[in-house]
Order: sequence, then C-alpha cells, then structure tokens
Amino acid sequence: MTQVYINQLNNYKDKEVCLKGWLYNKRSSGKMQFLLVRDGTGLVQCVLFKGDASEELFNLCGTIPQESSVIVNGTVREDKRSPGGVELTILDINVVQKAEEYPISLKSHGPDFLLGNRHLWIRSKKQHATLRIRDEVVKAIRDYFYEKDFVLIDAPVFTPAACEGTTTLFEVDYFDDKAYLTQSGQLYMEAACMAFGKVYCFGPSFRAEKSKTRKHLTEFWMVEPEIAYADLSDVMDMTEDFVSYIVQRVIKNRPDELEALERDISLLKKIVPPFPRLSYTEAVDLMQKGGHEFEWGGDLGAPDESFIVEQFEKPVLIHRFPAKVKAFYMKNDPEDNNLALCVDMLAPEGVGEIIGGGQREDELDILSEKINRHNLPEEAFKWYLDLRRYGSVPHAGFGLGIERVVGWLCGSSHVRETIPFPRMLYRIYP
Amino acid sequence: MTQVYINQLNNYKDKEVCLKGWLYNKRSSGKMQFLLVRDGTGLVQCVLFKGDASEELFNLCGTIPQESSVIVNGTVREDKRSPGGVELTILDINVVQKAEEYPISLKSHGPDFLLGNRHLWIRSKKQHATLRIRDEVVKAIRDYFYEKDFVLIDAPVFTPAACEGTTTLFEVDYFDDKAYLTQSGQLYMEAACMAFGKVYCFGPSFRAEKSKTRKHLTEFWMVEPEIAYADLSDVMDMTEDFVSYIVQRVIKNRPDELEALERDISLLKKIVPPFPRLSYTEAVDLMQKGGHEFEWGGDLGAPDESFIVEQFEKPVLIHRFPAKVKAFYMKNDPEDNNLALCVDMLAPEGVGEIIGGGQREDELDILSEKINRHNLPEEAFKWYLDLRRYGSVPHAGFGLGIERVVGWLCGSSHVRETIPFPRMLYRIYP
Repeated sequence: MTQVYINQLNNYKDKEVCLKGWLYNKRSSGKMQFLLVRDGTGLVQCVLFKGDASEELFNLCGTIPQESSVIVNGTVREDKRSPGGVELTILDINVVQKAEEYPISLKSHGPDFLLGNRHLWIRSKKQHATLRIRDEVVKAIRDYFYEKDFVLIDAPVFTPAACEGTTTLFEVDYFDDKAYLTQSGQLYMEAACMAFGKVYCFGPSFRAEKSKTRKHLTEFWMVEPEIAYADLSDVMDMTEDFVSYIVQRVIKNRPDELEALERDISLLKKIVPPFPRLSYTEAVDLMQKGGHEFEWGGDLGAPDESFIVEQFEKPVLIHRFPAKVKAFYMKNDPEDNNLALCVDMLAPEGVGEIIGGGQREDELDILSEKINRHNLPEEAFKWYLDLRRYGSVPHAGFGLGIERVVGWLCGSSHVRETIPFPRMLYRIYP
Repeated sequence: MTQVYINQLNNYKDKEVCLKGWLYNKRSSGKMQFLLVRDGTGLVQCVLFKGDASEELFNLCGTIPQESSVIVNGTVREDKRSPGGVELTILDINVVQKAEEYPISLKSHGPDFLLGNRHLWIRSKKQHATLRIRDEVVKAIRDYFYEKDFVLIDAPVFTPAACEGTTTLFEVDYFDDKAYLTQSGQLYMEAACMAFGKVYCFGPSFRAEKSKTRKHLTEFWMVEPEIAYADLSDVMDMTEDFVSYIVQRVIKNRPDELEALERDISLLKKIVPPFPRLSYTEAVDLMQKGGHEFEWGGDLGAPDESFIVEQFEKPVLIHRFPAKVKAFYMKNDPEDNNLALCVDMLAPEGVGEIIGGGQREDELDILSEKINRHNLPEEAFKWYLDLRRYGSVPHAGFGLGIERVVGWLCGSSHVRETIPFPRMLYRIYP
C-alpha cells in the first residue's frame, strides 16, 4: 500500500491507508489501545479495540517503546475532536525498529541535556513547530525578493578582512594564509547592487561572541538586501513592508504550528504598516520623559530597547543615531553631520533589534578618510573603495537576523531554539 | 519622475521615463550620440540627435566615461531591432558620478586580473547572465522542495568532526577549542528526516582542496535532501525529476541570459526523464568495450566520467559502486555485499558528476563497526549512532553541487565564474 502522510489523511476518509512514522506516545484503557503516531507532517491517534484484533496484535500495541519506527495500516475515520479532524482504526502494525529506552521523557529536562540531545529533541512538538516556522520565514523571504526582482548574490564566507569590528572574528587557517569567517555580506552586496540594481544575500554569518545571552549565537543566518539609487527613506519603507509580509505569511501558512506553541496570534495580526518611527533623539526624549535613565550619545543597550518597545504594539524604527556609535560605512546626515543615516528596527514583546540598516557613504574621499580613522587596513578595502571610483551612486540596505525574527514569531525565550543545531560559546555538539 | 527599470520599458512606449543606471558603452556618428546604458535589469540604447539638443548636452554625452553613473530622462520608442524591442530618445542626462578610467576594457584580460577585479567584473554581460541564472537555479531548488513539503533544516557550519575524510578539512580556532567547517550537512539531515520525514539543507560547504582544477572551489554551495522511509530507487527517481525541473525552469525563465551566453538551448531541452541508468559494473563494461581503459574496483576519475557522458545526451545515473570506494555511511547492497547502494549523476557535455547520493546504513551494529574500521572518532559520532537506536528506518538522500549545475547550464568552462566571489587555493580577495 502506498504511504499517505498524516497531513493528507483528511483526503482519505473511510479509506485504508499506510502510515510510516514513529510512536510519539501511547496509552491504554484495558479494552483499547491508543497510539499517537508522528511522521514529520503531523500527529494522529491510532486506535485498536480489543475485540477487533488478534490477541498478539493487541498486546504488541501495548508494548512498543516510545520513538520506535512503525508502519501502520488502518482505516481513516472522521473525528472532530482530533487535532487533524481524523483518527485511524488500526488494521495492522509493523515495528520497523524497536527503540531503546528514549532519553527524552515527558518530564522536564535542563537545557544542557536537551541541547546535547538536539538530534532527538527536534522530534518534540514545540521544537518541531519552531523549525517549521523557520522554514516558512526563510521561504517567505526568498519569495519576497524573487517577486520584487532582487537578484540573489551569495556573499563569500571566507573574507580577507573584518566588516563589523575585529574583536569578534573567527580566524581560519587558509592553506599558508589566514582568512576570517564573514560577519556580514554587506560590503559585497554594495558591489553587487552596482551590477544588478537590487540584490540580496542570505547565508550564515559568524561572530565570536563571548557573551552568553539569550540573543546571541556564534553562527546565525542573516538576510541582507542592498539597493542602488536608494536612500534611508526607501530602506525604512521597505523594512516595514518586508517584516509585515513575513509575519502575515506565517500567520496564514503556519496556524497549526503557532497553536502548538500557544502563541497569541492577535498580537502578530497587528504587525502591518505603518510602524512608528522615532529619530534617535526622539527615542532618547521618550526614555528620559518616561523615567528611564539614558544619556544622548550612547548606543542603545538591551534594557533601553526593552523600554522603548514596551511603549508600542508594533515594531519601532529608530533612525539617525549618533555617527560615532555606528559603523564606518554609514553616510552622515547632510542636515547634521553628527548623525548617521541609519535605522534599527526593534520588535515588540521585549524582542528588541531585528534589523540594522541605512544609507552607505558613497563619496570616495570621505569613505577613505573614515577607513583610515578607524585604523582599518586600506589594502583590504581597496576593492570596496573602487565602488566609489567607478559609477558611485546613493545606495542603502539592511540586515535582518533570522533567529531573532523566528524567536519573536514563536515566542521563544532564547534564540538557541530557533536554529536546528545551535552553536554557542560552549556548544558545537552535536 | 519615478524610476523605470529597463526590463519594464516595454510597458512605457511613447512615454517619458527616468532611467537610473550606468554607462556601459557609447559611440557617436558625428550627428548622433548612442549611449548604451545598463541598470542591472538590462541594457538599452539611448539616442540623441544633434539637432534636438543643446550643444552642451550633446557634447556632454560624448565625454561621459565608461561606468559613470547616469540618470537619463527620455522618451521610449519602439525599435524592433533593439534587444528589448525599445530604445530611448534622450531628453536630459545627469551624471551622478564621473568614473575614473575603468580598468576592464573590451579587450580580453587574463583570469587573474579579472578575478582580482571580481567586484567590477560582475557588471560584464556574461558574468551578469551567469549569476542571474544562478539566482534562478537556487530559487527553482527552493520552490521544488517547498512545493513537495520538504522542510528546510539548515545544517551547522561549525562541526566537531569530519564527514567526508579528514584531509580536506578547514580548522577554526573556536574559543579554547577546535572546530571544523562543514563538508556536508548529510549526517544532520539524517537526524532531521527522522523528525520531519522529508528535509533538505542548502548552504555553503567547504573543502580544503589543494588541487587546482576547473571543477573545484574551497567554498561552494550544496543542496542536500534526505528522506525517511526511502531507498536507493526512490532517490534515483527523485534526482531525475529534480534536475529536469531545474533545467526546464531556467530555459523558461532565463532565455535572455542563456542567449547572452550563446548557449545551445536545444541540448538543454532534451533534459527530461527518464535518464539512462547504468550499474557501476555496466559502466565499466561500457568503458572497456569502447576502448577506454578502466579496471573494475576503482573510483571514476574525471577522464572516466568524460568518456561515459560522451555516450549520452542526457545525464547518466551510475549506481552500485564498489563499497570500498564510497563513504562509510553507505548501506551495502543486500544482493552483493561488495557494492554500496549509491548513485552518482554525471551531466553531459563533459561536465561530469553533479550529484552523489544513496541509501544510508540504518543498522546500529553495522554502522558502528564501519565507524571503527574507518578509524573515525566514535565519541564524535555518538549522536549519529543514536539515530539507529531510536526508531531507525531505511532512509536515503543526495547532494547536488550548485556551481557545477550552473556551470553546465551556462556552458562555463570553469566553476569560478558560477559563484559571485569564488574562493580557491590562492584566492580570497576581493
């Protein structure tokens, strides 16, 4: 009999089907066996009445260990109380492999234990739902850019120099030389947008973060669009449209997963344009008037971000930070040279920064001077300066961190659950 | 005036538009100026009659250096001889930045020079076309798996151990420890398919290849699907369907780019199922009968692959290699224990291997023994062995290298042109 996946059972009511999956959980009432079977697409309850089966089959059902692989033949019955609207009356069952005692039980485990068993933990309901939402977020992003005629330009992982500061670089032995793992593809996207107009990269980025926070991974995925002939205002409009698109698509296509995570969807439904926009100076004012201590001139820390996002139900755009707290490639505001033409997007519910972006310095002399002032190796940036020699144009872009967005949508308290195999300060296994 | 992209000009016939782009090339006939302008979406000829313009504007057009950034206002005129079916009558032109003398001229340059100027070289017609085809290939792959309900499970880049042999590993200082850059996400996909049924990963992979061949990069992108409850035969069917889908979609969506590359599309149109299938033993027989020296038992080298693919117009599936030339995780053929249940797909026109895959060993004892026999560190593979302890099932998958596929579709002679910023033995700049 051909295999039917659990999320398709609705189309097979009153028919005989063959399920191939794993035993997620079981219980018995003496006269009935209830096997909860998963196959990666969903869960279904499989039922056997004692009177309908051989004693051998009935007893077998009662003894299959958790997470054993099983092939179940049965009849699909409508059952409105069941999650998928159906259950299965068991006709026959074949245990492909009888599992050893499964280490992850229904009792709660500590995070170290679960992370050490990540290869098994991803079978659990909430982890499973989180990673399916991640899949939807990634696809939404790729569809968004493809439909808007952006060209995917994969940025290199091996780079000759740092983009976001040298203290968090991973160094690699590259034959007889040294290379560094990319922290951002932005500089490469600046080159690419001069060739393709609208581009994006989307791949893993690396930061040797020694801090153990709930927001940091050493390896994370980032999407970075860049647009030629665009300015800060264009980018602010786009971040709003982009983030709304992702959120609304996940609500539409992944309702079961959001429900499994007990996520309050009413909060997510509010994420539609326009988003509140504050200049950095206005944000400082908001903090000070609200009794949150903060002095003009510093970068926003996690507590500052939290204070700001608590005032709003939607993500907030904070633009025009002091230039000195931002990276060298930011263009200064022509209306106030102390400010950078940059924007951060802070997500609500305490999530904080999910986007950083802005307009890039497009004048050769100014950029060259900034590279020197930041003590960056000019030789490594020669190609980057070339972009201001041969047809420089105003251009702007941003970076969005996938794990933080997935964490926000899933209501996860830690980004480590939003990536299949998280890498942190003391964690590269499994 | 709002910006119109060149690939949209067809919708603006006889209308005034504003183009924002770069000067690709120019010529003059004394009474007319012809400016070829690109904006990332295409090329358009912009024309100015001496009688229609001020002397200042006419002279300006004649002196703009190649690759200067220009904003052109003009009227769209139908012109059936032009590539996009239209040209632009110039009304006004604004030079955003006058470029310095552009280093890439129309004369031919050596590969080292071009690779060192990769940030500019990607503006050239053929490089541009190749990377747009790469974008289409990637999107086709992601759509294919999304539509078939595969879940994207990003594999980690930092790994504690080797998958494909230890001689080509890149080592990273990971805080006080060592980590290795991934060579394949397969082992992680095996864990994931037991949780999600059908999964894939798609990201950069790394091999410290010291060989300088036209087929190798140190950093390349690979897509690796893995399916629970699947065998070698399922995977062979899928590779055929998958590769045909990619090829036909590129023909459909990227005809202009294939034409820019002067690609013979008639050859690509033939890439539809079924593909020829040969066992390794049959392939050896084919070589020997055709006068190509080869002894049963060895792996196929590039010349052997070339000989085989020359016999066919479509990609060829070669299955059931001797187990000893294949990786430890391959399941042996129950009908002949010396053979592995594996498959390679070799692409025509001299391209060779683009896919390697097969059925994985699913029995704990056999796999454990193989890990020991290959002198692999059992501790690092403990989690991998767990997959055979807790609900092991027959499972299979494959890996497809993106650059080789793009190279095949584009007719490129070297994979270095199929990735935006290639990384090779002596090349990590720019």
